[in-house]
Amino acid sequence: MSSAPTITRRADFPGLITPDGNPWHYLDTAATAQKPQAVIDAMSHALGRDYATVHRGVYARSANMTLAYEAARRRTAEFIGAKSENEIVFVRGATEGINVVAESWGGANLKAGDRIMLSQLEHHSNIVPWQMLAERVGAAIDVCPITEEGLVDLDWLEANLTREHKLVALAHVSNVLGSVLGAKRAAKAAHAVGAKLLLDGCQSAPRMRLNMAELDCDFFVFSGHKLYGPTGIGVLWAREELFDAMPPYQGGGSMIDRVTFEKTTYAPPPQRFEAGTPMITEAIALHAAIDYTLSAAGSGGMESLFAHESGLARQAREALSKINSIRVLGPERSAGIVSFVMEGVHPHDLGTILDEENVAIRAGHHCAQPLMDHLGVPATARASFGLYSDEDDIEALMRGIERTQRIFG
Amino acid sequence: MSSAPTITRRADFPGLITPDGNPWHYLDTAATAQKPQAVIDAMSHALGRDYATVHRGVYARSANMTLAYEAARRRTAEFIGAKSENEIVFVRGATEGINVVAESWGGANLKAGDRIMLSQLEHHSNIVPWQMLAERVGAAIDVCPITEEGLVDLDWLEANLTREHKLVALAHVSNVLGSVLGAKRAAKAAHAVGAKLLLDGCQSAPRMRLNMAELDCDFFVFSGHKLYGPTGIGVLWAREELFDAMPPYQGGGSMIDRVTFEKTTYAPPPQRFEAGTPMITEAIALHAAIDYTLSAAGSGGMESLFAHESGLARQAREALSKINSIRVLGPERSAGIVSFVMEGVHPHDLGTILDEENVAIRAGHHCAQPLMDHLGVPATARASFGLYSDEDDIEALMRGIERTQRIFG
Repeated sequence: MSSAPTITRRADFPGLITPDGNPWHYLDTAATAQKPQAVIDAMSHALGRDYATVHRGVYARSANMTLAYEAARRRTAEFIGAKSENEIVFVRGATEGINVVAESWGGANLKAGDRIMLSQLEHHSNIVPWQMLAERVGAAIDVCPITEEGLVDLDWLEANLTREHKLVALAHVSNVLGSVLGAKRAAKAAHAVGAKLLLDGCQSAPRMRLNMAELDCDFFVFSGHKLYGPTGIGVLWAREELFDAMPPYQGGGSMIDRVTFEKTTYAPPPQRFEAGTPMITEAIALHAAIDYTLSAAGSGGMESLFAHESGLARQAREALSKINSIRVLGPERSAGIVSFVMEGVHPHDLGTILDEENVAIRAGHHCAQPLMDHLGVPATARASFGLYSDEDDIEALMRGIERTQRIFG
Repeated sequence: MSSAPTITRRADFPGLITPDGNPWHYLDTAATAQKPQAVIDAMSHALGRDYATVHRGVYARSANMTLAYEAARRRTAEFIGAKSENEIVFVRGATEGINVVAESWGGANLKAGDRIMLSQLEHHSNIVPWQMLAERVGAAIDVCPITEEGLVDLDWLEANLTREHKLVALAHVSNVLGSVLGAKRAAKAAHAVGAKLLLDGCQSAPRMRLNMAELDCDFFVFSGHKLYGPTGIGVLWAREELFDAMPPYQGGGSMIDRVTFEKTTYAPPPQRFEAGTPMITEAIALHAAIDYTLSAAGSGGMESLFAHESGLARQAREALSKINSIRVLGPERSAGIVSFVMEGVHPHDLGTILDEENVAIRAGHHCAQPLMDHLGVPATARASFGLYSDEDDIEALMRGIERTQRIFG
């Protein structure tokens, strides 16, 4: 039925096996993705035979490590269609990326009376930094509602954005519902009132072809560990002219031009935003993760991964919808993420029973309590797919749900 | 001559070999330490067969990963003699740790007219965050001079601290000179005027036995990658009552109690300061690094490592001092770090020639430009030792220096 290409590379992922050697049906890729051996090997070599610091040493291995670190920056720039590698700042993760924008750009550009537009479905990482900024400068936050189907309501957004709005910050793909934002329309609406648009790309970077110029956003963030890469690294992209005008975030080594006790001057971006010894081996392993992901996507590119995972999401939605006690949330077209609730069964109990069947789902508020409040549930069960997911995972999920029905029925 | 135990475990470090299989004389451990295989293996397993997110999953592997992550926190607390694991916040590195204190504690506790006391030998990471804070709140910075020998002048410190000083921030061990701070005396002087003491422990954590209660400091930071651990992780320790009163640093998932658009409440420390998916595998590998370091130190504990590395530093100083064109900087008693300048030879040229002899030193300002200004040099050459260093490294260094003399002589 699905025309999505079959992408099954389970064998590349040492994490997809249980301790007793059985397949692990990992349906929590939206929380964090498993890593291919190529990423683990890149990390091992970087920590081992190739290890040295960057940007400083006069010996060859340090120079090589610097080349590898900067190659990771260039590869990342290519991957998201940035204009230049100077638009790529390595951060700890998407959360830090948003905090950098809030603290540095927001602190310099927002003042009392200004407004920030978020949406009802945002992750806490795209809410709390703005609340902290708003409190600091005296700005206000508005919340764009979502449609019945679970999409950010762009009609409402267009009608309610004003000249007071300086920033619109939205999830490119919802981590709970899998809804895909109409990003270009959101950008047009934001720019029409002179606001900047930040996209939280945590769930889109592993699943969609990205091109910053086409998206027409102003800031974009994502996390390495959700893109089959290591923990401890993420990416903040901003238009070069925005970075140029932003004050530093953290102070320390590598981000300075010249330090005296009287006056310190700062390096240009991206170094200005990378104080201290960077996540050297993490950047190199992220490079390997991008290479692997594009290779797994094949000639169809990232669109193949979207087709594959949204196809699995559709199949899961169909199977789940046949069960009377289950309510499936979110839109029909989902980027590989399906949330649902089961009448009379707390998602945590469902998750625990599924675990006994070697099926891993997430149960909880998914760091999106305002969305839970809106949906009128304390928590959902969530199955999310990755490039290694297949129909066996869905069958295992459904077997586990049937067993849960028998236990609770 | 030296009574230091012989600690040579080169074979455990895959990084200590050149591409053509020769020993690499790595004398840049103060910049970053090489990693033992045990750390690389811990990272590989955490990224592979054991991988899952923490603090959220309802399945067993995520629960196990959470236990491993929190065990790393407890092990770190033990390693530095903290009162409780709640006093340990994982950060990107020492630089971020200092920025957290400056932004969160400093922002809440310093006001116009207050003063911050630093010293002439501080690393940029222990200068720039305070300059940024001082500018923001209108505080002033004072600079404690160093003695002829290269130690922070505690007589001066005691005589010049006032009730206006709210914070004293000093390197526990100088990254350029290896000088060891009289930390307890500095703490007593700071506390006598009601100031807090922050110690930059980057160079002491890998070389000294640490006990927070004995040191009597208020904040302590160090980096994992200088302690034979991975990049991308470091530790901020603070007294529990200080953390309790500090506002959050970054906002996001995991650091909240409850999020609504009207009001967000925050989790208690340490979670309050760990927004977003943490450096999961890095924490686990840091745990392995601490285990390895203590095992390498043996029954003598961290004092053995200090004796070993300060013994090598003494030998290197003696050998270097015999060369007329070389001026050795810093005190006789150094924690394994020796800086020097060679008349008529730029440190970068020396570093390049040494590289051809498979000897890696650091040449530059070592992120301590104010100290360079004080010493009246643009840069120094620096040899720094680790637990794997031995006399062969010093002999190779001296051979390279003799060759440099011949080339420039």
